[in-house]
This record gives sequence, C-alpha cells and structure tokens, in this order.
Amino acid sequence: MDTGAGLPDIAVGFDGWRAEVRTRVLDEVAGFLRGVRTDGLRSAAVEDVLRQYAVGGKCLRSGFMYLGWLCGAEPDDAALRAAASLELLHAFALLQDDVMDDAALRRGAPAAHIRLSEGYGHDGVESAVRFGASAATLLGDMCLVWAERMLRESGVDAAALARVWPGYDEMRIELAVGQYADLTNDVRDRPALEEVLAIARAKSGNYTVARPLELGAAMAGCAEETLMMLSRYGTRIGEAFQLRDDLLGVFGSAAVTGKPEDSDLGQHRATTVVVVALESADPATRRELSELASRPALDQAAITRCRDLIGASGAPERVEAMIADRVDEARSALRACSLPSGRRAALDQMALLCTARQM
Amino acid sequence: MDTGAGLPDIAVGFDGWRAEVRTRVLDEVAGFLRGVRTDGLRSAAVEDVLRQYAVGGKCLRSGFMYLGWLCGAEPDDAALRAAASLELLHAFALLQDDVMDDAALRRGAPAAHIRLSEGYGHDGVESAVRFGASAATLLGDMCLVWAERMLRESGVDAAALARVWPGYDEMRIELAVGQYADLTNDVRDRPALEEVLAIARAKSGNYTVARPLELGAAMAGCAEETLMMLSRYGTRIGEAFQLRDDLLGVFGSAAVTGKPEDSDLGQHRATTVVVVALESADPATRRELSELASRPALDQAAITRCRDLIGASGAPERVEAMIADRVDEARSALRACSLPSGRRAALDQMALLCTARQM
Repeated sequence: MDTGAGLPDIAVGFDGWRAEVRTRVLDEVAGFLRGVRTDGLRSAAVEDVLRQYAVGGKCLRSGFMYLGWLCGAEPDDAALRAAASLELLHAFALLQDDVMDDAALRRGAPAAHIRLSEGYGHDGVESAVRFGASAATLLGDMCLVWAERMLRESGVDAAALARVWPGYDEMRIELAVGQYADLTNDVRDRPALEEVLAIARAKSGNYTVARPLELGAAMAGCAEETLMMLSRYGTRIGEAFQLRDDLLGVFGSAAVTGKPEDSDLGQHRATTVVVVALESADPATRRELSELASRPALDQAAITRCRDLIGASGAPERVEAMIADRVDEARSALRACSLPSGRRAALDQMALLCTARQM
Repeated sequence: MDTGAGLPDIAVGFDGWRAEVRTRVLDEVAGFLRGVRTDGLRSAAVEDVLRQYAVGGKCLRSGFMYLGWLCGAEPDDAALRAAASLELLHAFALLQDDVMDDAALRRGAPAAHIRLSEGYGHDGVESAVRFGASAATLLGDMCLVWAERMLRESGVDAAALARVWPGYDEMRIELAVGQYADLTNDVRDRPALEEVLAIARAKSGNYTVARPLELGAAMAGCAEETLMMLSRYGTRIGEAFQLRDDLLGVFGSAAVTGKPEDSDLGQHRATTVVVVALESADPATRRELSELASRPALDQAAITRCRDLIGASGAPERVEAMIADRVDEARSALRACSLPSGRRAALDQMALLCTARQM
C-alpha cells in the first residue's frame, strides 16, 4: 500500500494540500459507492442524490479527521479512506435533516426528498411528497450503514480502529440528540443564548470540527497532550463555525449557502444571531422582532423586516466578535502544543477557512 | 464469564428454552439501553417508545441468531448478547416503517410518531405531526447505531465478530432496499406474484429468519454444510413467515396483530394474498376486486367487501398451501443435515412457531 506519497506535503503549502485531500476524499467515496450492492434501487434520481449529498461537499469533516491523524502519524492511504467515510455519515445527516426541515435546496439543487418525489405515480401530490420523504430517509439510513462499513473496511489496522469506535458511536448519537433538540428549538420559547449554543455545539460544532479531529487523533494514537489541545481547538472552532453558519442563515445569499435565504427565519429557528439580537436590541426593536418571530407564517416582507431589525440591533457585530474570540482562543491552544512540521500551520489555516466571512 | 449455564438445556424442552431466551434477550436490551448516554433526550414519551419498540417483541430475530450460533457452538452469554442486539435493529426498522406507513398502532399501543407528537407546543396539528415523525425517525437512527454498538461490545471475540460484519451490513442494506421497494409496491400496478415474493423476501423474510440464522452460524464458525442447510431452511421459513403475515394483514384481528385491521388493504399494498386473489378469482370477482383496489381511499365497507372477495377467491387456501409447502421443504433440509443434540428439534419447533395460524 502506498503511504500517501501521492499527496503534496502539508508543510509545503496548505492550499495545494487541502485541494488535493478534498479530491482524494471524494474519489474514495465515489469509488466506495460504485462498489456497494443496492439491487433494484438504482435510478437516475438516486444516483443524482448520492452525488449531490455524498460527493459534493467541502469535505470539512473528513479534512479535520485526516488532520487529526497527521497530528500523530505520517500520511497514509488507509487513514485517508477512513476519514473520507465521514462524508457518507454527513450525507446521512443532510438527507434526513432536509426531510425534517422540508428544505427546498441543498448545495444549490433541489433537496433529495423533492428530487425523489418526482415521477411517483399514484394519488397525486400528497402521496408523492410522502414517498419522497420516505425514500430520502431510507437513502440516509443506507449512507449511515455505508459510512460505518467504509470506516471498518478502510484498511486501518484493528487496534487503531478499536480506538475510533467509542468516539464514533458517541458522535453519531450526539448528532441525533442535537437534531432532536433542534426540532424543539423555537424562538417563540425564548431560549437563552447558552441553551442555543449548547444545541449548536451538539448538532453541528462538535460534529464538524472537534469530533472528527479527535477521531483522527485517537486513530493515530496521539499523546494525551495533543488530544487535549485538539479538543480545545476543535470546540472553539466548531462553535465559531456554527456562529458563522447562523449569520449566513440570516444574511447569506443563496449563492453562498446553497440554501434558500429565508429558511432559518421562516422556521422560527432560535439561532445564536436571533437570540443575541433579542438580547441586544432596544425595547421597541425587541418588541417588534418578537412579534414578527411569533407569527405562525412569515411572508417575504416580514423576513426582510426581521433581517433589517437584526442588522440594526448590533447582533451581527456581537456575533462577529464571538467568532473572533473563539478563533483567537483556538489559535492560542495551538501555539501551546508541539506538533509535527506543517500541522500547526494547517490547523491555523483550517480555522480561518471554516470561520471566514464567506466560504 | 458464565457460559450460558443459566439457560435451560435446549435438548430438554423447547418451550422452556425459548421462553428463557426471550427473557434474557429482553433483559440484555433493557440493560444496554439503561447504559446509553442521551443527554437531554429522555422523557416519559421517549422511555415508553423505547420499551414498546425495543423491549416488547417476540424476539424471533434474536432467537434465530442465537439458534444459528448453537448450530456450531455451545451456549454463551456473549453470543446471546450479540443476538439480542438484533432487537435494537428491529426497533429501528419498526420506528421508521411506522413513520413511512403512517401506522396508527404498534403492538396494540399508539405508534411512536403519534406518541411523540403529543405535547408539541407550536402551530397546531400539522407541526405536531411533523415533529412526531422526525422524532420517531431520529429514535430509529439511534437504535440503528446502538444495535451495532451492542453487537460490537457484546464480548464476542474479534475473529468471530469479523465473520459477522459482512452479512450484517448486507442485511441492513437489504432491509432498507426492501422497504424502498415496498414503498412503490402498489396493487394498482398489478405486480406479478414473483415480484411481490421477491420484495417480501428482501423486506421481511430474509431479515427475520435466514440472515439472523446465518449471522449466528457465521459467528460460531459453522461448517459450510451447516451454513447451506440453514440458508435453505431460513429462506423457506422466512417466506412462509411473510405469507402468514400477509394473511394476517387481511384477515387477522387487531388483538392478534397489534395493528389496525384495515392497514394493508387501505394502503393499496400488493401483498401476496391480494395478488394471489387477483390471479385466482373468476373474471367477475377479479373485476370487482380490481375496481375496489383502485379507489384512492377505501372506506370500511369497501375493505370488508375486499376481504370477502379475497376470502371467496380461494386465495387463503392457496396461500396456506404455499406456507405448508415451504415449511415441509425447510424441515426436509433440516433432516438432511447433522446437528448437535436438540438443535434440529428446536429449529423444527421455531419453523412451526413463526408460521402457525395464530402467533
């Protein structure tokens, strides 16, 4: 087995390394999917959806897991394949989240349940919608099973894999529990910022940065000092990532997010930026924002007005400052730890990449 | 570790052995669930649902997996725990199937998505229904993850587990693919009996009997001859089980099935008994049955009339004969193979138990 010699040296240049890792991750996932048996299931719509959800992402999670590995070991094809399996786990999460949120778009294309509902033959629209949701849920289940199989069959040795499973199981349950909490997370219940941050950590922050890094580092058998540093770094960057995502959820254009512009506000989601706005606004603004947020359905004018009120409340600046604080703390944690050549610089770059104003 | 001395000897009496295995399986699952972390998720409704779906069944699948083990090894607590994990996998399948079918009842109590929708606070009925469906789907996902963790942490040695994973993955994908096929299985498309039997095999037959037996036997390292016999036996009994289930779906009382009496017919499901009825009926009956089955919604009178027409078509007798043929073939396969003391008799009894007129 080649030991990753095909990849550029991480110490030479981050951008080239990162682009190449992404290409290799997506190749591994596409190759794995070509090899799985799904008799009688494959159709053009299913193929499109698998491509869109499993082979179309930015590969942040697999990138962080592989970086975690590199904090304690040399480049390795099997470890890269193990890391790539997180893209299938992410496809599972996206497929089922989109059903639960009735999302219209994902990565700029119709969401899976919509694509899969097309061509369903009986009983008109209601049955087609139900079929699409069920079909997307089942494809999600399959991605969850495939993710684990891809990890197990990655070629990583048994002792290293045994160090991965406990955190892997914990992450998967945490992801589901976080999504469960998100379902009941409603701005009309006036949750406190700390509660909303806890959901953000569980649902997305940990799962995007801290856990993948920890899994990779555990797989590599990193020393306790490194594991603790990565955990500190990962928690901060994960939270900053989620704060950026919440800002984009209110102010981002569909061209940047690949999602409709009104989805967070339209769904009464108590994201950090909304909760900060309610906390920071003057009494009159707070009253108006509360009233708008309490309406059962928000039309385009109401959403635009919410966006303006949030913008005027000072919340965007406060959330930007929260992001900057977390990135600073994470980078301090990095500096306090010894790491092999190029790894610290790469973690530094990744911190900026996934919390920057536009991704 | 005690090697299963707590269990009655399978060779002494089947009924006592079977009852004790079921009790031990349910104890293992309940104990595992007490140990899992689900911070912030637990509520009375979630606890009720987990009990209903994971600790309330007949334990056919775990029973078959443990019997497969006994075909090549001695009683063993770790193997029993590994087999018990299939009850969590089954809970996953039931939770998500009930969402997809919008089932009203499971095991005589309200289905999970209905139970979980109670108490949801915002926007009236439609949002509560959506929340219940999402919550049940997520609990299903967690059961899928827990099932695999329970198997991995069962205490079965690594070499034996390594023989289980390929079949385990295949079974989980087959289950999802079978459910996917079932979603598009509509009596109005006039599927042939052979197609409907293929879906039944994938969705339920294999998953209930053949795969669990094969997993247990693979875990025990059974000889090829035994594996082939169990596969023949399992395929036949699985099909007979599904045929019985289809008969109960049309003619069974809710007291026996724990499900509403009209669900199969009301959902236009092309089950074996309906397809056999359409194939066997005289032209006038076939015309009337087709017409009834094509209506977008069937009221109680239409369902009663369907049931009468199917009863008069000769289909129940033909399906009973198909069940008897499969049980006979399975028992012949059993007789042609050498098995340790008591195992053949137990498989013989299980064949009758899970295909008998009332369960």
